[in-house]
Amino acid sequence: MSEAIAAAERIVSRCRELARVTDVPGQTTRTFLSPATHAAHALVGGWMRAAGLQVWTDAIGNLRGVSEAASDAPRLVIGSHLDTVMNAGAFDGPLGVVLGIELVEGMQREALPFAIEVVGFSEEEGVRFAKPFLGSLALIGELEHGLLQLPDKAGVSVAQAVQEFGVDRKRLENAVLAASAFAYLEFHIEQGPVLEVEGLPLAVVDAIAGQTRMQLSFRGHANHAGTTPMGRLRHDAMAAAAEWIGEVERYANGCAGLVATVGKLEVPSGAANVIAGECVAALDVRHAKDEVRAAAVKHMLQAAECAASARGASVESRTTLEQSAVAMDPVLTDAVVLAWKGAEGTQPRRMTSGAGHDAMIVARRVPAAMVFLRSPGGLSHHPEESVLINDVEAAYRAGLEFLQTLRDDRAMLDRLVQNAMHHKREARHA
Amino acid sequence: MSEAIAAAERIVSRCRELARVTDVPGQTTRTFLSPATHAAHALVGGWMRAAGLQVWTDAIGNLRGVSEAASDAPRLVIGSHLDTVMNAGAFDGPLGVVLGIELVEGMQREALPFAIEVVGFSEEEGVRFAKPFLGSLALIGELEHGLLQLPDKAGVSVAQAVQEFGVDRKRLENAVLAASAFAYLEFHIEQGPVLEVEGLPLAVVDAIAGQTRMQLSFRGHANHAGTTPMGRLRHDAMAAAAEWIGEVERYANGCAGLVATVGKLEVPSGAANVIAGECVAALDVRHAKDEVRAAAVKHMLQAAECAASARGASVESRTTLEQSAVAMDPVLTDAVVLAWKGAEGTQPRRMTSGAGHDAMIVARRVPAAMVFLRSPGGLSHHPEESVLINDVEAAYRAGLEFLQTLRDDRAMLDRLVQNAMHHKREARHA
Repeated sequence: MSEAIAAAERIVSRCRELARVTDVPGQTTRTFLSPATHAAHALVGGWMRAAGLQVWTDAIGNLRGVSEAASDAPRLVIGSHLDTVMNAGAFDGPLGVVLGIELVEGMQREALPFAIEVVGFSEEEGVRFAKPFLGSLALIGELEHGLLQLPDKAGVSVAQAVQEFGVDRKRLENAVLAASAFAYLEFHIEQGPVLEVEGLPLAVVDAIAGQTRMQLSFRGHANHAGTTPMGRLRHDAMAAAAEWIGEVERYANGCAGLVATVGKLEVPSGAANVIAGECVAALDVRHAKDEVRAAAVKHMLQAAECAASARGASVESRTTLEQSAVAMDPVLTDAVVLAWKGAEGTQPRRMTSGAGHDAMIVARRVPAAMVFLRSPGGLSHHPEESVLINDVEAAYRAGLEFLQTLRDDRAMLDRLVQNAMHHKREARHA
Repeated sequence: MSEAIAAAERIVSRCRELARVTDVPGQTTRTFLSPATHAAHALVGGWMRAAGLQVWTDAIGNLRGVSEAASDAPRLVIGSHLDTVMNAGAFDGPLGVVLGIELVEGMQREALPFAIEVVGFSEEEGVRFAKPFLGSLALIGELEHGLLQLPDKAGVSVAQAVQEFGVDRKRLENAVLAASAFAYLEFHIEQGPVLEVEGLPLAVVDAIAGQTRMQLSFRGHANHAGTTPMGRLRHDAMAAAAEWIGEVERYANGCAGLVATVGKLEVPSGAANVIAGECVAALDVRHAKDEVRAAAVKHMLQAAECAASARGASVESRTTLEQSAVAMDPVLTDAVVLAWKGAEGTQPRRMTSGAGHDAMIVARRVPAAMVFLRSPGGLSHHPEESVLINDVEAAYRAGLEFLQTLRDDRAMLDRLVQNAMHHKREARHA
């Protein structure tokens, strides 16, 4: 018990230490392959080595550490990302990596019937190249050639950034996860208020929500706000957009698990005394089930048409992002839940992740599971982002129980390996 | 009959000729005391002289033309403005001046029991100093000293602009309207769609609507659009503003003569995937009755509070403009209506002006009346702004009938002079 608390304290203190490794003094800012990333790799790589892992940096800059085992031993992967947003907190990403290393330490270099690989992904946030998940895409061998040509704001391409960082992009195929990998486990902060409101330390993630982003342009007719009477002589794009936003909120309120947001709205040449001729809004819709999301989007587009045409206005829409929901693997998740119950004595809450994670990418290749830790204040992407020490301890205990089960319960390990082979076949057919 | 058509054609052709006098080649742009204003004064002043008027430019740059008459003769003032917005049309303002000159011509230099003064105001639109009505304020002796210090974008003050234009601002008191003025009549395009929709050429204006402009800032809490569920954990400033905008429109739709507009809305740091933490909107409310407008504004502010608090958000409001309604003079307006019926054989439509006009300022000193001409397409402040020749003819005929009545009906002239004295006493008590 006190050992788990000591582990939790070490995890938090290491995350805080890593947060001081930054490109911008006084902040935590560590974007994809930035100068500070070298120092971050030295620090985290040192912790990996101390835990008995063999460490290398792959061709996209992911930090990898793997335990010794028979070369054909099934491999469990635990990871998250080491890059951050601008002016970030200490836990979004690093927590999952540092906790993974601590779990390896917790197994005390026993001879295990499986290998453990800890991955610190190089790019999840997408800050530098406006394209997230470059690290995890390379891990599953899906980093398309075109992505290497993406330029950052300074005109440096991904390929050049990789070269300058000192890794050899020609060895991208060596970055691909070993065929023996049978499970991916990611611990991450929730980044939302749900666990805090419910007074719960952890949750297991059922699915990562699919996402649709659209831009809607309402077009009415700009006219004098004083001389144009209300009613059919007005074609007010703002009033149409407002009615629509109300309907977006009303529909989402009535549909369990759906979130829908209009977070951006512009009135080009808007003026206090001019009826808005145009109004451009961004819509963000997410749900764990693609068909629920599709139905919601369809309804919202119809509502936009109605709100516009009722005012003699029109609306055009354009999809800017369409991302399917990704279910976490049910067999692997059940195994994590079982370990959880062993450690905690309770049934975990299950929840949908509204944000994307590396697990969503890795899941294309191996069964993936995620555990969320409560986010005090729902805060993330913020210097005051934090975790509670007891929550980290609970996550550590559940993780350790899971590793011990794999060590002790041969049938469970076999089931998960079988599950991974089944997953691979399904993925090939998809 | 054909004489009135010829007059109408001359009015339209003179407005078009004046529209070519501009500071920006290819447009009609003639702001307060701009270089082109000299040429405009030369052109319009020439027309005034040809109509037998004595012409001068007063100390704020208003072009004035007055007919010869006994020095104590009551004076009828007809006018509108000669300045324009940027890239304007040909009729907003100039029509009322040119039509006034044509009416003087129409009286064929007869000896009249009253004088006629035609005024081309120098500043109504407020483009150069972001302050409208400088010309009419000087005419009624209410151009406060502070206004002379206002700077334009180049840092030139009103006082300097006046000096550079070549008029002597020390003679501002000489710009004040003669004490013998008993009526002010302004012809202006409607700048809205009502007359066109109703198939009517003209309307008399009952009142110029009072106006309230406010800025409302809705404050919620910026949060992740994906990880923050709907309902009480969201504090969405955009959704609050949208509900409120819907209520502004709904209330105005249900209140005769009220117009209410949200024409400007900003979401500072708005992003597609972030719940809006702040939303700043501009409200414009107008009505001919101040108490109706006040009740509307009160309701709308309450609705904003409700929409915000329902989402755990707040709202702050700030009044940026508060302008009382100005009634046109009923006795003078009745005399205009009577002349109208004589010329047209019909009862005129009466309407509220949703926009401000020089008549609104002049009305503080002398009884004022306004006639609106249909605006094809509801267009104004636009190069394609136009008038129909038959509407101009109708306006000319009604105006001429009014002048002939004043000439022939001594009782009517006396009634209007008495009315002006009564108006002056009321104004002193106000």
